[in-house]
Amino acid sequence: MGKTKGRVTLPSQSNFLEQTKDLLNRWGADAIRDSDGTKLDDDIKHLDAKIYTTYFVARGHNEFAQQHMEECQQIYLMSAYTLATENQVSIAFAKEYFDQQVTPDYDHDPKVWWEVMDRTTDEVVDPANWDYDKEHHIVTVNNVIPFHEYTVSFLAYILWDPTQMYNHITNDWGDKPHEIPFDVRKPASAQYVVDYLKQWLKDNPDTDVVRFTTFFYHFTLIFNARAKEKFVDWCGYGASISTEAMLAFEKEYGYKLRPEDFVQNGYYNSTFCVPTKAYLDYIDMQQRFVKDKAKELVELTHAAGKEAMMFLGDNWIGTEPYGKYFPEIGLDAVVGSVGNGATLRLISDIPGVKYHEGRFLPYFFPDTFYEGNDPIPEAVDNWLCARRAIMRKPIDRIGYGGYPSLAYKFPKFVDYIEKVCDEFRYIYDHVHENEPYCGLRVAILNSWGSLRSWHPYMVAHGLYCKQIYSYNGMLESLSGASVDVTFISFDEVLAHGIPEDIDVIINAGDAGTAFSGGSVWNNEKLVSMLRAWVYNGGGLVGIGEPTAIEKGGHFFQLADAFGVDKELGFTLHTDKYFHTPVEQHFITEDVVEDLNFGEGMKNIYALSEDTQIISYSNGEVHLSTHTYGKGRCVYIAGLPYSEQNTRILMRSLYYAADKEAEFRKWYADNLYCEVHAYPKSGTYAILNNTNREQVTNVYDGEGNKTSVTLAPGEIRWMVMNDGK
Amino acid sequence: MGKTKGRVTLPSQSNFLEQTKDLLNRWGADAIRDSDGTKLDDDIKHLDAKIYTTYFVARGHNEFAQQHMEECQQIYLMSAYTLATENQVSIAFAKEYFDQQVTPDYDHDPKVWWEVMDRTTDEVVDPANWDYDKEHHIVTVNNVIPFHEYTVSFLAYILWDPTQMYNHITNDWGDKPHEIPFDVRKPASAQYVVDYLKQWLKDNPDTDVVRFTTFFYHFTLIFNARAKEKFVDWCGYGASISTEAMLAFEKEYGYKLRPEDFVQNGYYNSTFCVPTKAYLDYIDMQQRFVKDKAKELVELTHAAGKEAMMFLGDNWIGTEPYGKYFPEIGLDAVVGSVGNGATLRLISDIPGVKYHEGRFLPYFFPDTFYEGNDPIPEAVDNWLCARRAIMRKPIDRIGYGGYPSLAYKFPKFVDYIEKVCDEFRYIYDHVHENEPYCGLRVAILNSWGSLRSWHPYMVAHGLYCKQIYSYNGMLESLSGASVDVTFISFDEVLAHGIPEDIDVIINAGDAGTAFSGGSVWNNEKLVSMLRAWVYNGGGLVGIGEPTAIEKGGHFFQLADAFGVDKELGFTLHTDKYFHTPVEQHFITEDVVEDLNFGEGMKNIYALSEDTQIISYSNGEVHLSTHTYGKGRCVYIAGLPYSEQNTRILMRSLYYAADKEAEFRKWYADNLYCEVHAYPKSGTYAILNNTNREQVTNVYDGEGNKTSVTLAPGEIRWMVMNDGK
Repeated sequence: MGKTKGRVTLPSQSNFLEQTKDLLNRWGADAIRDSDGTKLDDDIKHLDAKIYTTYFVARGHNEFAQQHMEECQQIYLMSAYTLATENQVSIAFAKEYFDQQVTPDYDHDPKVWWEVMDRTTDEVVDPANWDYDKEHHIVTVNNVIPFHEYTVSFLAYILWDPTQMYNHITNDWGDKPHEIPFDVRKPASAQYVVDYLKQWLKDNPDTDVVRFTTFFYHFTLIFNARAKEKFVDWCGYGASISTEAMLAFEKEYGYKLRPEDFVQNGYYNSTFCVPTKAYLDYIDMQQRFVKDKAKELVELTHAAGKEAMMFLGDNWIGTEPYGKYFPEIGLDAVVGSVGNGATLRLISDIPGVKYHEGRFLPYFFPDTFYEGNDPIPEAVDNWLCARRAIMRKPIDRIGYGGYPSLAYKFPKFVDYIEKVCDEFRYIYDHVHENEPYCGLRVAILNSWGSLRSWHPYMVAHGLYCKQIYSYNGMLESLSGASVDVTFISFDEVLAHGIPEDIDVIINAGDAGTAFSGGSVWNNEKLVSMLRAWVYNGGGLVGIGEPTAIEKGGHFFQLADAFGVDKELGFTLHTDKYFHTPVEQHFITEDVVEDLNFGEGMKNIYALSEDTQIISYSNGEVHLSTHTYGKGRCVYIAGLPYSEQNTRILMRSLYYAADKEAEFRKWYADNLYCEVHAYPKSGTYAILNNTNREQVTNVYDGEGNKTSVTLAPGEIRWMVMNDGK
Repeated sequence: MGKTKGRVTLPSQSNFLEQTKDLLNRWGADAIRDSDGTKLDDDIKHLDAKIYTTYFVARGHNEFAQQHMEECQQIYLMSAYTLATENQVSIAFAKEYFDQQVTPDYDHDPKVWWEVMDRTTDEVVDPANWDYDKEHHIVTVNNVIPFHEYTVSFLAYILWDPTQMYNHITNDWGDKPHEIPFDVRKPASAQYVVDYLKQWLKDNPDTDVVRFTTFFYHFTLIFNARAKEKFVDWCGYGASISTEAMLAFEKEYGYKLRPEDFVQNGYYNSTFCVPTKAYLDYIDMQQRFVKDKAKELVELTHAAGKEAMMFLGDNWIGTEPYGKYFPEIGLDAVVGSVGNGATLRLISDIPGVKYHEGRFLPYFFPDTFYEGNDPIPEAVDNWLCARRAIMRKPIDRIGYGGYPSLAYKFPKFVDYIEKVCDEFRYIYDHVHENEPYCGLRVAILNSWGSLRSWHPYMVAHGLYCKQIYSYNGMLESLSGASVDVTFISFDEVLAHGIPEDIDVIINAGDAGTAFSGGSVWNNEKLVSMLRAWVYNGGGLVGIGEPTAIEKGGHFFQLADAFGVDKELGFTLHTDKYFHTPVEQHFITEDVVEDLNFGEGMKNIYALSEDTQIISYSNGEVHLSTHTYGKGRCVYIAGLPYSEQNTRILMRSLYYAADKEAEFRKWYADNLYCEVHAYPKSGTYAILNNTNREQVTNVYDGEGNKTSVTLAPGEIRWMVMNDGK
């Protein structure tokens, strides 16, 4: 690979001109960005590179916000559970919250806009039975039932943008002003964001790309009274509510939203909860509202001859890029952080924009770039995970963040990134106008469908979480695998049936969650539709507790198809005879490590001898297959990410699709390697996904094999014989 | 301990006179029994010992049964789930069953007495839509919904007594006749069992004790088509049904039973299922019916000058000895098998009989008594477990079973049992008219209450089961602990409140089961009653998933009292800050081994810093305490039986009761030892519960300590100072 240029964005900073030039040259960067806490000098802005400038729409304008505190953003919050021990109970409802972030809204009549709930019966308390004390933030409830628990759902103003608050507290920014978020649903704010952008566009002639961070409402991130995170949901819409939005909703949908529609038992419509109709309606309304408002700003940006780029995150409520209205915003680009393959696909699959940019790890921050530490391993991991996904659907640009002066002190790191940039450009050129070879079409079926493509199971910003890693691994595996992946929702399937071109459906999650489906499995239409589909030749893969709700003697409603079910205790008196694993199975043929099902799943048992058990221990099935009519099912207890589990999943999918015969095409039998083929261009690439040397047999599109040895992390491009 | 005599029952066999005399003498036995497969010779019957004779009431009389096949016992059975793939489905409903055991009953109109269920919707299919083929045992259902599952619930005759069937098949008895069970609810059978017993009593003058095995209906034990166990529930009432019973029920209760009331999704009213009202009503009716019929036989026995003893098990439907009508039967004695301390208490606590006899392990069978094997360790384990329980509430007699000729070949075993018999008599004399010192009164709260005293969580006949051992351990621990134990049901508590004298309530089980309580926790009365009780000073111990049903934002409805809850996914976005264990805690002060919570419980988290976490790992709380008003709660993830877990439980109970100060009374600080005190007689005993030497400090009733060294398995009797 020779020296190439472009498709790379460099962060810069003050007093860093010469080094910036050097990095621009070595990494072939063609854009320079500012970051939170860095500003670009004029001489840097005049280099031969596009200039990205971060732009905050509804925060960071305190001169305006402080004059319009009645236009602050709002949220419904739930008090702590408060036990009544007598006939009256006083609830200090705001006590758990960080008063610098939120404050109760008494401007709108609490008797109208708040709710007191008896949580022991799940009933609303008549407002005649309670009163509030504005000064001390106390609600006193009369005529309560002793030893029931009560909560207050109150409307609050948000006084501090959560991201700035987080950075402020984390970095101890002292008396730096708190950025107040204001609500563009309210008149002065709506006007202000337009006027301000117009002027700003005039004032920033050097800016080529306006990087919106982001638009109007920040995802839910609430701190507690100790100024620590209390609740965070990257997909949460809670902080976009207002009395105006409540009224607009009622007008449009003909029914009223209640505080409980947001507070929801304290679950706040977590993405793990099966969404209610009211919540889905609300999301739809806010997406349309945000789309209109954002579109206006994007059009102004275009009129000024600049590009509009959206940061994927922060104030992104209503601009979820897989939402149906997103393309109408007319953005040029989306930029997001690439933690692994799944987050790369989360960015690169976004429809409706001209280009996608990924910010790679590590950030050039002192927590990584300090003397004695080697930043390269994190960069290697990040690149190798992302590279697999790029082979399937590339982002169009890569970039870095933080203080380049820190990175510049690590010459070997600068060398490595130089190599990555060149490799990225080479891959991009070979891949971006090509369709990769795809063995199967896979659909992930859950409550959210395409809206939450590549980020089901997301907790916080994709941090490790005990309860999700055994599901998340499936997404990471798929992100760089030779299969096409779509995300479909139960509602979609119920309305339109299962899409024609799907080979295998995956349902994966804990019982009761939006990812397994919870109460939707009470719907006999869904159950029988899925049964019929598998019976007639479809493939179904279940992970964890698929199709789970206790009914009719089954816990898995498709237990008959999976050939396994979960013992809840009710059938302990029924003998379970089937626990002998098969001696070998297609699915585990490449296995070289111990099997690892992560958290696994307790008490899974096989229903009959027709179930082929592949892994069994401690009285539990971990991996099994079952034929159902012309179709096949695979059950997997859990699938944390690893190269081996990627292979197990791929083989499970091929097995479920009854396409084992097709599996050895564009295939490497060493599971640490993968092959991606591009029939149109007649090329294919063999990837070593590890940082160790690997030897593998590689199979071409006709199943002919050759042995190859790959250096650590190597990607080797090959030309097909006769275009095959 | 000098040589004593009595309270021991010896099995004997043919041609074993001299050895029987020797064993009688050495073990101090005063009764001789026959067994299944052994008969007593006349000379043995004339020894100076009571003679027990096994008696079958409603089996083993084929000359009668074969002439009255229409009076066979019956059961409702469910077919396999059968998938409809078109508009018609044929269900070979009896195919899964063992045709030598059961056969469909076509004598009573299937259209009236059977049900076809759509298991996908949980609805009954109109009988007009199905028909049956008697010859091939096939039901054909028309107008079905494709890809729904259907089952047939059919009434069957039972052709073979399950215990005899089991023995027959296990021992390969060839063409020995199958004993046919007949139903005393039907006229000829009702008359027959009376007439036969009358004659038998005349014919067996040497019999002193008629050992009924048992009365009328065998607990549910159904074999599959391969002649292997398919379903077994020691407490199941299914095999007592008949059309007569169905009609009698309707007449008495004013509503009809349905097949589904028995089949229940294929759960067959497993004791793990929260019992329905219909099932509880049915149990009550059958208990009264059986009581009346059994009483008649017992009265005949008494009239003949003999005692009536009931075997605890086999054909015992309706004679559950903790049922409310049991004492009215008027039995002299109950005999049952002693597997451990809990099963000993299951026997010794039975009300309404004059004496209780326990059959100890090992049975004198060739599986244990073969050359090269040492039968003593099993006997030691059995005795040491049972002995703790005997110290609390002794059985009145012990005994053995099987072929004494086998045991006689192991002289050291004979020696050991001689020692056990003497030790038992010594303990009995010191204990049976004494109240042991009791530190606390504990209630185990579940759906079954006292009816299933000492045998909640029972699967099969008390075999090991992965899903229960972490709960069963709690019962075993309590069986020999210095606390009084009662079993109370939710219904009882709802009707009459929590009994006044209870210090601590335990709720232990998997969510949804009868032992945790399932849907009963939707009842706000129960929830608030229990909260109030703890708040006002009660102690609550939860094991596994106590008080569990997802509602109002909690999974554990008493999460606020326990201070912990289980993460189901819905609050993953809420930060959990509390995972630092306390440095030391009263509950774990004696601990010497690694903590062992058995299966444990996933995803338990502490709600606030008020929860004292004692054990935490892998993101989960395993053991914690929480103060609630004046009361206290303890949460334990699981409690398999061990000496250490017994100590942890005892300390949990004392802690929950806020009586730590009382704990060091009649207490041994070495957890392998225990102290039982008898204030009335002014004695106490120090037990070494292991077969290894132990050194311990022993605390008397005033907390004064002395160090003692105990030989393996030693029990040391002491006299109190000043009676204290």
